[in-house]
Amino acid sequence: MDEMGTGRWLRSAVVSLALGIALAAGPAPAAFAKSQEQSARISDFKLANGLEVVVIPGHRAPVVTHMIWYKAGSADEAAGKSGIAHFFEHLMFKGTKNHPPGEFSQKVAEIGGQENAFTSYDYTAFYQQVAPSALETMMSYEADRMRNLTLTDAVIGPERDVILEERRMRIDNNPGSVLDEEVNATLYQNSPYRYPVIGWRQEIEKLNRSDAIAFYDHFYEPNNAVVVVAGDVDAATVKKYAEETYGKLPRGADLPPRNRPQEPAQATRRTVTLNDPRVTVPSFSKKWVVPSYGSAAPGVAESLDLLAEILGGGARSRLYQDLIVEKGIAASAGAYYQGTALDPSSFGVYGSPLGKASLADVEKAAGAEIARIARDGVSADELAAAKKRFVRGMVFARDNQAGMARLYGSTLATGGTVKDVEEWPDRINAVTADQVKEAAAKYLDPTRSVTGYLLPPDKSMNWPPEKGTN
Amino acid sequence: MDEMGTGRWLRSAVVSLALGIALAAGPAPAAFAKSQEQSARISDFKLANGLEVVVIPGHRAPVVTHMIWYKAGSADEAAGKSGIAHFFEHLMFKGTKNHPPGEFSQKVAEIGGQENAFTSYDYTAFYQQVAPSALETMMSYEADRMRNLTLTDAVIGPERDVILEERRMRIDNNPGSVLDEEVNATLYQNSPYRYPVIGWRQEIEKLNRSDAIAFYDHFYEPNNAVVVVAGDVDAATVKKYAEETYGKLPRGADLPPRNRPQEPAQATRRTVTLNDPRVTVPSFSKKWVVPSYGSAAPGVAESLDLLAEILGGGARSRLYQDLIVEKGIAASAGAYYQGTALDPSSFGVYGSPLGKASLADVEKAAGAEIARIARDGVSADELAAAKKRFVRGMVFARDNQAGMARLYGSTLATGGTVKDVEEWPDRINAVTADQVKEAAAKYLDPTRSVTGYLLPPDKSMNWPPEKGTN
Repeated sequence: MDEMGTGRWLRSAVVSLALGIALAAGPAPAAFAKSQEQSARISDFKLANGLEVVVIPGHRAPVVTHMIWYKAGSADEAAGKSGIAHFFEHLMFKGTKNHPPGEFSQKVAEIGGQENAFTSYDYTAFYQQVAPSALETMMSYEADRMRNLTLTDAVIGPERDVILEERRMRIDNNPGSVLDEEVNATLYQNSPYRYPVIGWRQEIEKLNRSDAIAFYDHFYEPNNAVVVVAGDVDAATVKKYAEETYGKLPRGADLPPRNRPQEPAQATRRTVTLNDPRVTVPSFSKKWVVPSYGSAAPGVAESLDLLAEILGGGARSRLYQDLIVEKGIAASAGAYYQGTALDPSSFGVYGSPLGKASLADVEKAAGAEIARIARDGVSADELAAAKKRFVRGMVFARDNQAGMARLYGSTLATGGTVKDVEEWPDRINAVTADQVKEAAAKYLDPTRSVTGYLLPPDKSMNWPPEKGTN
Repeated sequence: MDEMGTGRWLRSAVVSLALGIALAAGPAPAAFAKSQEQSARISDFKLANGLEVVVIPGHRAPVVTHMIWYKAGSADEAAGKSGIAHFFEHLMFKGTKNHPPGEFSQKVAEIGGQENAFTSYDYTAFYQQVAPSALETMMSYEADRMRNLTLTDAVIGPERDVILEERRMRIDNNPGSVLDEEVNATLYQNSPYRYPVIGWRQEIEKLNRSDAIAFYDHFYEPNNAVVVVAGDVDAATVKKYAEETYGKLPRGADLPPRNRPQEPAQATRRTVTLNDPRVTVPSFSKKWVVPSYGSAAPGVAESLDLLAEILGGGARSRLYQDLIVEKGIAASAGAYYQGTALDPSSFGVYGSPLGKASLADVEKAAGAEIARIARDGVSADELAAAKKRFVRGMVFARDNQAGMARLYGSTLATGGTVKDVEEWPDRINAVTADQVKEAAAKYLDPTRSVTGYLLPPDKSMNWPPEKGTN
């Protein structure tokens, strides 16, 4: 029921976006103009019960995307209850007192629609893509399950087993995911981003009905959600439907501000190593805690976005050009920035060797590229080209109905506004070369980093040791 | 006001104990007999309000040690409130509605007594050592501050500055402490033992009056404390005094069980490195999460205690004999086990090089000694000698009034009983060589360890990089 219910999601999303930008050839002025036109007609309003509604009209095709974003992710979980946000995402598909389990999904399928859901650190979202005529029905079902779920032990027990199996498949059976999990638990020393979105196994095993009800009653309220509707519909119609569906739900108790434990100043260089027989090609992934759009001073997150773009955002980037094209030492190399987050998040650089090159060669070369930017900065041409690629990427994302809904939803669910989304291209374009250099020098400090190594088995690490070895 | 208010305390205590054992030469049958005699006369009772009282009579000198142990340590703190337990230890010296600030301490000084307090992961304790005639007065003052503290902003603000300064001196200005802090934050991925006892600076800065009052009202109650009185006094007298002082306090609300977040299964080998100009001799410290007396199956913690003794508990240990005496490559080398804890805690091995040996040489040689025990086990003679040393160490600890009080208090505050303390020597003596081997093989797995490196500056790590370097 969840598209990508783990900590990898944010990273994957950002990586895909970056690659998407780089692979898109040539300018796209028409799309840009269209996007600008769309932005101008976006509506953003609140119902009396506190539900925020964003409408993004777009009439290219007779389709609408309906999403609801709850401001409740894994970083909002209570201590010892990791996984409850994602667990709850599953439970939302389990039927209400008005509709039996499966009816909503069957309805979507019957009318040829698509649906899905996902959980991340800062939010849980559900969406359906359907014909405009079905929008009101979708909103009615979605509003119904916001408050009327049937949460019995008979529902919860089997779903817990489903999730434990999902964890086994996605994390425990995947050395890269096991490593990522421990890298995050090492990178963040205090922030709840250290916990895996899917939850620690030993805690998932104990999640029960009262945990689920407590989470539901606390977070699943109209005043803690944002509905985004994009596509072939107008604001007045959406408002009417919203009043008739979500509008009938009472406002929930006010939620406290999302003031989560913050990171201490870090002073050490850390490594996390996993040797596993399933690994054939070694790889590294180096991470730093950096400000996010939700936590940064103006211009800093934008600088980090461009730094990621210049350093490792696809085939035009320095890492790609130097390590893959020129030196030919890397099979892969790139950088990413998880900017869309409420609290300070992470910037990452990764690579794996090619041919006779060692992993250390690749890591060293990547480190030299970072040091070069921190020392010498970036050129005006390089910055201009990166801005163009980055903004074009936004335009492509905005030209897609679901992508547009997702952009607004994720921004609004992490403390941003519609205006923040609309002004994002301008803010990116305002970044100076000095700001990019400063971001590299200030944040990509190797003495305050965490490097994950995914390696083939190391015979010297066999444990417990056998007779005759040491 | 606190003896050792940081995460180093447990480690220091255990290390001192281990060294104390090793340095004590020859048998001590008289002390052992005395200890046995003492144990037989220990009284353990509860007042009607739930306060547990342990009396350990000992009439060698006209002195009594009076300690109160609250089952409230840094691992009991709420998320984002790290340091409040230790902060509260300080606030306990700030005066009550019956006695102005300083009066209690002045009283202790006037009668030639000693007092102190300390905070750890699992408890906060306060003690006075005075003449028996002053015991009732001490109990009266201690009972008074359990519930009658004056907690105003005028008291709390300045004390917060004192604690921030304490943190600066003890942690931030000490590279070894900075490293320890980040090693613990890396070692424990979910357990609250990951947080420093003194608290993260950014969280101490925000601790306020309402945090203090919430902590006080939740934890400082007779039914959440243990009073231990050791020395020249009898149980009937202590009971009478206790009824007249502590006994007048009402029972507090029942506290929930101390069910804290538990560690996930760990799969990686981690390192944490700090380069600092104040470091001249490099050192390493390798740690593992292992069961504690509070969490282990029967015999496991005892096996780990003997493993620490055999591997690195002083001058007779393998690490000392092999690395320091025979090979002459180490200036220091040892092992310790933090067994007295409610939740799984840590086992550690440390060392630093001597002469031309490198830190890697020392780490490798220590690893080989661990592997040798995991592979070949320990001999019957070696085990018997280690048991003798370990039990003799207990006897010496028990022969000291304050040590005795501390042993009972720390055990009772971490889920143990008087019987656990009394039977400890027998349980140690029951450990088999196979159990020690199994403990090494099962728990000291190098692929699931965290190694801290404290190193002199590394020129290649200078950041941001200057022109001409890379």
